Amino acid sequence: MNADSSHTAGALRDLIDHLPDPCPDSLARAAERQDQLTKPRGALGDLEALAIRLAGVFGTERPHPQGAAVIVAAGDHGVTSEGVSAYPPEVTPAMLANFLAETEAGPGGAAVNALARATGTRVYVMNAGVNADLPDHPGLIRAALRRGSRNLRVESAMTEEETRQLILAGARAAQQAIEDGADFLIPGEMGIGNTTPAAAITARMLGAAPEAVTGRGTGVDDERLSHKVAVVRAALERSPVTDPLAVLTEFGGYEIAAMLGMMLQAARERRAVILDGFVEGSAALIGVALNSNLRHFLFPAGECAERGHRAQLEHLGLKPMFNLGLRLGEGTGGVLAVPLLRGAAATLREMRTFEEAGIAAG
Amino acid sequence: MNADSSHTAGALRDLIDHLPDPCPDSLARAAERQDQLTKPRGALGDLEALAIRLAGVFGTERPHPQGAAVIVAAGDHGVTSEGVSAYPPEVTPAMLANFLAETEAGPGGAAVNALARATGTRVYVMNAGVNADLPDHPGLIRAALRRGSRNLRVESAMTEEETRQLILAGARAAQQAIEDGADFLIPGEMGIGNTTPAAAITARMLGAAPEAVTGRGTGVDDERLSHKVAVVRAALERSPVTDPLAVLTEFGGYEIAAMLGMMLQAARERRAVILDGFVEGSAALIGVALNSNLRHFLFPAGECAERGHRAQLEHLGLKPMFNLGLRLGEGTGGVLAVPLLRGAAATLREMRTFEEAGIAAG
Repeated sequence: MNADSSHTAGALRDLIDHLPDPCPDSLARAAERQDQLTKPRGALGDLEALAIRLAGVFGTERPHPQGAAVIVAAGDHGVTSEGVSAYPPEVTPAMLANFLAETEAGPGGAAVNALARATGTRVYVMNAGVNADLPDHPGLIRAALRRGSRNLRVESAMTEEETRQLILAGARAAQQAIEDGADFLIPGEMGIGNTTPAAAITARMLGAAPEAVTGRGTGVDDERLSHKVAVVRAALERSPVTDPLAVLTEFGGYEIAAMLGMMLQAARERRAVILDGFVEGSAALIGVALNSNLRHFLFPAGECAERGHRAQLEHLGLKPMFNLGLRLGEGTGGVLAVPLLRGAAATLREMRTFEEAGIAAG
Repeated sequence: MNADSSHTAGALRDLIDHLPDPCPDSLARAAERQDQLTKPRGALGDLEALAIRLAGVFGTERPHPQGAAVIVAAGDHGVTSEGVSAYPPEVTPAMLANFLAETEAGPGGAAVNALARATGTRVYVMNAGVNADLPDHPGLIRAALRRGSRNLRVESAMTEEETRQLILAGARAAQQAIEDGADFLIPGEMGIGNTTPAAAITARMLGAAPEAVTGRGTGVDDERLSHKVAVVRAALERSPVTDPLAVLTEFGGYEIAAMLGMMLQAARERRAVILDGFVEGSAALIGVALNSNLRHFLFPAGECAERGHRAQLEHLGLKPMFNLGLRLGEGTGGVLAVPLLRGAAATLREMRTFEEAGIAAG
């Protein structure tokens, strides 16, 4: 291990080892308060448990999370040479440019930009390893070490050092967003081909069969789906690793590592992480395996249409907030969930108790 | 028919007969635009159809609905003397006071107030027929004709004239909210006992058995649920009416009539109506039976936990946006859905097309 890798290994260990617990006092007081609010017990359904979890995250029975940020990490994948995606890899840099484009409505012409403007969410864009020379742009976080990951079917998608560096880059980006005011942190991704590494990671971390967790991504047909499953199976057979960081290194990719870093840093800083879809879920599986405390800071947005997402959520023991059939990525589902969580916190924070309202029932 | 009732009958007929179609041109152009946006087709799931429906409502392929209002209509119900609710009727006026109370966070200490503040929704409160003398309050819309409806088990809950007057009062309140800037109109309700008339209306309008559409309301136990079903059955047997306005008059109640008026007026003014729960759904069933165009303006928020809600939505042919197990009423679910619809519209309005982004795929 040289000086660089010794440094990144230490920094990463520090990040993984220092995730806080949710605040037990705040959880208990929030649960007590919830039962005294002016409504029949349980009548706010899942919002009640979400509000209590937010109390634990923010360490107060009256949580007031407001600012939100989505960090869209873009990366390319050597495995696209196997024909696992419905789109050519050139779409990754083109979409990255779209995230940053000037439009009449403001910066960014992609779905995540539009939803972010509608929900008061700030958008950050990261080049985590796109296969293109990207022009400098003040809105672009530069974290790429390589123009795309290696082909996971035949070799390790990343090196151990690349994995560590991308996790730490994700953590730094999250820290910046938090310093800019984010209480909600949404890791987002763009990367043609990235549901293939996500499926390999999910299969290995859950001990699931490749066909059970490999889906259509942006929309491959039956024939290409069978081929994609075969590619995932070949990768799993090539490498028997089970250590979480080794799994991430073997199967990739760069944006998944960056999203893992965002999640770890947000949890460390006691911020709520909103989980979008299947690719984010694969990063979360690695994270929770590294430190189970991470789970307390994760809030799945919607159940996405990608096969395997439900298995991820069941493993995490977390229930999504909606099922709108989203399968876009970019963090779009996470951005859409921001107002629901703001609302959940608002009920716990702002509703009066029966006693305060002078009502006998309760 | 005296002069008063001849006037209200004419005004109501005018309201019912003048609901617009959704704009077919805007629907077509929105659908075409949707397929050119920078995302795989269908990747935004249900948001895509919602955005297209909003284009039809607002008559533009780039809808920009922003302002939102919830009008919480409160009423009491003679049928509470039958013991159909877990709460005493005194809770209705107490909660109405809670909607208007001054709190540290702003006006209103109920769930709907907290969620409305979190989502940028304006709250209006209406006394549609509460069984109490209510102090004057600048925030209270006065529409009550009687202190609570009659007991629907033994007699008609309302008179025909009361029904018409409350529908028209709801329409006026909606018009005020629209003039104040509402693009989204959420009818909300508070009324101990009101899931009983809602169940009777739903059973009659759907031709369903009372036990299939009668639920636990704010939380009755098994024994009281059986009793509640028996009360609904007795009411249905007492009165065989099928005309929609007669069904509403027979089973009540005042806040349901007011919510129907809100829906009709909002549709007339080409605004989107967000449907909260089961009681709102019963008003919508009457409304769609009166004029099927109403359906195009309805957007169900969540599937609520009350039995019979799903049957209402299936009859309306509309899919809810989330399933958070809400069963509170007050319009809370509707308020929570506002940002989702703002987001759906934003994607259609603000995303670039593949051509605009210079991307070949599409």
